[in-house]
Amino acid sequence: MRRLLLAILLLPVFAFSQQKDLIKYVNPLIGTQRMGHTYPGATVPFGMVQLSPETDTISYEKNGKYNGDVYKYCAGYQYDDKTITGFSHTHFSGTGHADLGDFLIMPTTGPLQLNPGTADHPESGYRSTFSHQNEFAQPAYYKVKLDEYNILAELTASNRVGFHQYTFPKSDQAHIILDLMAGIYNYDNKNVWTFVRVENDTLITGFRQTNGWARTRTVYFAMSFSKPFVQYGQQNFSNNVYKGFWRKFDQTKNFPEMAGKQLRAYFDFKTEEGEKIKIKFALSPVSTEGALHNLRTEIPHWDFDKVKEDGQVLWNKELNKIDVESLSMDEQINFYTAMYHAFLSPTTYMDADRKYKGLDQNVHLAENFTNYTTFSLWDTYRALHPFFNIIQPKRNSDMINSMLAHYDQSVHKMLPVWSHYANENWCMIGYHSVSVIADAVMKGNADFDVNKALDACITTARNRYYDGLEYYMQLGYIPEDKNSSSVSKTLEYAYDDWCIAQMAQKLNRKDIYDEFIKRSENYLNVYDASTGFMRSKLSDGTWKPGFDALSTHGQGYIEGNAWNYSLYVPHNPSKMIELMGGKTRFVKHLDSLFSMHLPDEFFAETEDITRDGIIGNYVHGNEPAHHVAYLYNWTNEPWKTQDKIRMILKKQYRPTPDGLGGNDDCGQMSAWYIFSSLGFYPVAPGSTEYSIGSPAVKSAVLHLENGKTFKVETKNQTDKNVYIQKIELNGTLLNRRFITHKDIMDGGKITFYMSAKHP
Amino acid sequence: MRRLLLAILLLPVFAFSQQKDLIKYVNPLIGTQRMGHTYPGATVPFGMVQLSPETDTISYEKNGKYNGDVYKYCAGYQYDDKTITGFSHTHFSGTGHADLGDFLIMPTTGPLQLNPGTADHPESGYRSTFSHQNEFAQPAYYKVKLDEYNILAELTASNRVGFHQYTFPKSDQAHIILDLMAGIYNYDNKNVWTFVRVENDTLITGFRQTNGWARTRTVYFAMSFSKPFVQYGQQNFSNNVYKGFWRKFDQTKNFPEMAGKQLRAYFDFKTEEGEKIKIKFALSPVSTEGALHNLRTEIPHWDFDKVKEDGQVLWNKELNKIDVESLSMDEQINFYTAMYHAFLSPTTYMDADRKYKGLDQNVHLAENFTNYTTFSLWDTYRALHPFFNIIQPKRNSDMINSMLAHYDQSVHKMLPVWSHYANENWCMIGYHSVSVIADAVMKGNADFDVNKALDACITTARNRYYDGLEYYMQLGYIPEDKNSSSVSKTLEYAYDDWCIAQMAQKLNRKDIYDEFIKRSENYLNVYDASTGFMRSKLSDGTWKPGFDALSTHGQGYIEGNAWNYSLYVPHNPSKMIELMGGKTRFVKHLDSLFSMHLPDEFFAETEDITRDGIIGNYVHGNEPAHHVAYLYNWTNEPWKTQDKIRMILKKQYRPTPDGLGGNDDCGQMSAWYIFSSLGFYPVAPGSTEYSIGSPAVKSAVLHLENGKTFKVETKNQTDKNVYIQKIELNGTLLNRRFITHKDIMDGGKITFYMSAKHP
Repeated sequence: MRRLLLAILLLPVFAFSQQKDLIKYVNPLIGTQRMGHTYPGATVPFGMVQLSPETDTISYEKNGKYNGDVYKYCAGYQYDDKTITGFSHTHFSGTGHADLGDFLIMPTTGPLQLNPGTADHPESGYRSTFSHQNEFAQPAYYKVKLDEYNILAELTASNRVGFHQYTFPKSDQAHIILDLMAGIYNYDNKNVWTFVRVENDTLITGFRQTNGWARTRTVYFAMSFSKPFVQYGQQNFSNNVYKGFWRKFDQTKNFPEMAGKQLRAYFDFKTEEGEKIKIKFALSPVSTEGALHNLRTEIPHWDFDKVKEDGQVLWNKELNKIDVESLSMDEQINFYTAMYHAFLSPTTYMDADRKYKGLDQNVHLAENFTNYTTFSLWDTYRALHPFFNIIQPKRNSDMINSMLAHYDQSVHKMLPVWSHYANENWCMIGYHSVSVIADAVMKGNADFDVNKALDACITTARNRYYDGLEYYMQLGYIPEDKNSSSVSKTLEYAYDDWCIAQMAQKLNRKDIYDEFIKRSENYLNVYDASTGFMRSKLSDGTWKPGFDALSTHGQGYIEGNAWNYSLYVPHNPSKMIELMGGKTRFVKHLDSLFSMHLPDEFFAETEDITRDGIIGNYVHGNEPAHHVAYLYNWTNEPWKTQDKIRMILKKQYRPTPDGLGGNDDCGQMSAWYIFSSLGFYPVAPGSTEYSIGSPAVKSAVLHLENGKTFKVETKNQTDKNVYIQKIELNGTLLNRRFITHKDIMDGGKITFYMSAKHP
Repeated sequence: MRRLLLAILLLPVFAFSQQKDLIKYVNPLIGTQRMGHTYPGATVPFGMVQLSPETDTISYEKNGKYNGDVYKYCAGYQYDDKTITGFSHTHFSGTGHADLGDFLIMPTTGPLQLNPGTADHPESGYRSTFSHQNEFAQPAYYKVKLDEYNILAELTASNRVGFHQYTFPKSDQAHIILDLMAGIYNYDNKNVWTFVRVENDTLITGFRQTNGWARTRTVYFAMSFSKPFVQYGQQNFSNNVYKGFWRKFDQTKNFPEMAGKQLRAYFDFKTEEGEKIKIKFALSPVSTEGALHNLRTEIPHWDFDKVKEDGQVLWNKELNKIDVESLSMDEQINFYTAMYHAFLSPTTYMDADRKYKGLDQNVHLAENFTNYTTFSLWDTYRALHPFFNIIQPKRNSDMINSMLAHYDQSVHKMLPVWSHYANENWCMIGYHSVSVIADAVMKGNADFDVNKALDACITTARNRYYDGLEYYMQLGYIPEDKNSSSVSKTLEYAYDDWCIAQMAQKLNRKDIYDEFIKRSENYLNVYDASTGFMRSKLSDGTWKPGFDALSTHGQGYIEGNAWNYSLYVPHNPSKMIELMGGKTRFVKHLDSLFSMHLPDEFFAETEDITRDGIIGNYVHGNEPAHHVAYLYNWTNEPWKTQDKIRMILKKQYRPTPDGLGGNDDCGQMSAWYIFSSLGFYPVAPGSTEYSIGSPAVKSAVLHLENGKTFKVETKNQTDKNVYIQKIELNGTLLNRRFITHKDIMDGGKITFYMSAKHP
């Protein structure tokens, strides 16, 4: 018995020792320059805490005046910046809108400064210059030297606790600043309320409530110092309504209760040369009690290196789910950094005791699932959730359970559109939760009540006041004069409706199937044969005049123009191609897309991407085109998919800070990279088919949760040999342009025979 | 068995049938004019909901400009006003500072108006004129005709649920307005955040978070209509930071999710002539889920009359605890209205499932006690809590349990000073929780951990950063140049310290006794023999120059002047009298106090009272003098206590809206009335003695919780026969000027032989 126990205890260690050290291929700095909007800091896979440096949160003109640009700082960090304002605990990865940045910590020495100062004059505030020479980022670890103070800052994290380690010089004036005014998307007093209690000389608790992208959001914290502070204080920049008898106290110094809209607190220490001050900073969506419990449960010690190592073990475990051999180190780094970025979101959103705050602002218990938040669904339904259905099926099922809980708590009775932190922010269009659910149901990865899930999809899709749906249901399209981005919405609703129909068919709900398969054909109503594009219609049934296929303004599209969006019928490319004049004409159309030049005036209208993020008029940096290169598979020239995919992989992903041509969008761009590198892609999530592209890897082994492995093998693979001569699935010639989910999940091997020439 | 069960079931009904109908003697309108600050609306004893009309919440000049006076509307209602703005759910009774006024409901007809309008031009808004002829107030019931709309408004309540009944005329434009901007002490955007969900066509939930007198306060609600509304909408007067994709919706109409700082919502109905629309409105300190549970648990039906009857049964039960026979109907009404006012606060502060929000903003469970809030302790330690120790001992013990929970949750490790709704507002001075606790401990009514309670008292009394305590502990007094109201504070701390010493002695904590009995003599340090008054000292040990015995400004007193505060040594009147030159001189001093004229300039400085609220320079409307008339008992002329008491009872309490000369102060003024009417008063809570006054009642029977009765009997009682010839306790001549708590609680009879002449 004892022997057996020992064997069991040794098993995980042994299992781990089998794993490769893959975190060395991950560079969290990729995407931190320009439009990638990733953050370089420390987190664990799908962790609640993202502890990362802020170089600023809003951008300023040279004269220090706010220039209106909060977009640049969606992740709080821009690689080109020269100063760091501090380290905060919550960050989105790769989003196109901003929020979070909760609880900024900054260590300083010398005279206390309680304002951040400006980038041009860092000495005017607590911020510090830094250089990338003194910066190092790894999964679950980040370090940087703060030049102004000669402080080495190191960060790591467990799921719900950020762990700071600051190595100070000798100083009688060492400070830790807790800035509750700081935040991302903070230009207009986003704070609704903040509250801090200094429980004792090493423990602080409190919360921050904001009205930002999330309308009603509260995050609670518990913060523990490794050594007692000497004294502390605060500055309250807000004007509390009632002051009255609070005047009894000098609240600015050593007064343990702080509250207001705009607070900055500081804690003073005396340090010896090289002395480390450590901070454990736990979050909770529920209460300070929850945060404190998270803190004590997850990190009951002060061993920074152990937390870092534990976090890196977790990362290696996740990264080892695909064992890839690339053609170059650059591609190896691209691949594992994409894996890393794909495993950042959605994030855990419940306490260690399984409690979380729901959309109804009540506290709920996630009894049988892990509750997640940060659902950037317009992006992630395309490839990230399909990727999870292969490589993170348990987590994907729990994400859907989280979406169903959201639905239950929604006063609109709607599944999430773009939700974070117990809030719906309604960002972008469609109701793509239904795609995520259908994809899981159709692929048999549905550890939830499928009929209830289908009902949730139906109710969502029938909400008459949601974003033009009433017109869509009445007219079969959304009239641009009633609701903008009408073409994009009509097309995406049609696809989503097809997803519902697929589920209904599988679950033998004939009436629902009939209703939604009919709705799924609504794309037909916005196709204008005279221009050959999907085009915006008015409520009187006429086409909106002044059509411009290159413009995105007022034309009925969002994050795309007619060229891109007209290709959006993922559930029926054949019919779309037929509409557009047949295969031959369609190939020419696609060729033009990739080769034309988008004039500057129209590029300027394109959101979220850099010039590098486009190829011709193909905008890879925005999602609506993510399936486009695969559409050649529905023509007689599928080899054009193959060279386009390899080109996009090369051009749009580089292992450098500016290596992402557009927002990573919570892992969608990375999931595209992973799929496409492996040689297949889910053109229509909700179907069980993956369209064949052209693998970029030399080989890859997918270690599936069901214990099986699926191997991607290539022959004659080089950078130039982008064309597929033949494919064998488990040694048998594959006579189709897709593989199925079952092909993968049953385990086995796919072998691509590559060549420099197309057949 | 069945027979027995039947008998048990019948018992409470039988018991009730024994009770008198005493609510007919209660007039909730008493104190609603001028300074009384009571509210006329519906509530149950110690109920969480106080559903009452607002006539305004801040006062304006004739030109409609805010005149800075929020004080007038501490209870939201002023009897002289001609208009009602609506009915809100939370009100303090008799306080000298304002807050609450949550969730104002107003029924209207005709074109929708979403602003309240002004008192001068009620037609400019939703408010309505009304007249007192059409108004009726009773315990647990209030009704008024809203003239402008011809709507009869009726209110009743259970503990946590307000029940509205509005009888409408026939109208196609009937509205119920839910004004989340309205509130008491609301002049400067007290709202921090509000949140509303329209769950279905009869149910609304949400919360309101404010930064008022309570710095961080949130109240949750669930609101249920007796019939579905036709449509609804809102106006959001706040400027939410992020609007973005919320623009997808017309949020002003039939959109079920509202959030912002400043919202007003409305619900539209069509009504027939005489149709009643009823609203159940439940509160919770914890969550909307808690509010909904309260709503469903407490009132699972729509029978308004039953809720009213249930509430009035509760009131009769409480009022019947003293069966009094007065000399006149006026006095009978004064007495039972005083009982009513004494049983309004502290208020229940936990959900039906025993959860409540604590001072640490976490949710706690009150497992073994009822959690209360609204502790106006500077007022209520004097007579209200001592009164509860006799007539509400179980509730008083639970109030102390609530105070101990507050202590546990306090980051300052302090017992409450003035606390409400999970907040400490620090109003007034002293740490009189210790008096309340000591009084309960000394009187043997301590259903809590007494040693823990003593520790809480000690820790509170040693907090160095609290209100001059550091100086007090160092110097034995508070220097006026360091901390204002220094004499009042020194005197009150000294008394509080004596309370701690009493407990310590009883619990055999000798070291604590020694420490605090010494501190209790600190009143000696502020007695100035040269003026014969307690006087403010500076930190160098000299008296502060410019002494003025009549002024309250800068002299070291609060809500009193030297004449009043110099008499504040409740724990040792004999020593105080000796200091002040002995008994003869002291009598002259007291006589002067009651007979002198306070010049207008000094009256103007007196807070919280009307001219009627003073007698000479004796300020009954403020609490520091409440024990003063009893001090003759420590001289050779105790009969002067007797005529003063009877005079004060007559002059300061009248059964009219303007019948209270000062704030009722959460029942303290009323408790003084009750004690004094019965013939005795607790001069020093924490002692077990009650000083004899002069009974005003003809007779009274106190029905004690221990099953015993204590009878107060008078002989030759008339309005003129104010002097006591002799007293018999259980038939034996009483040879002391006090009775003990044991005398009362053992049951029995005290007989006062009255006369028109003093002995």
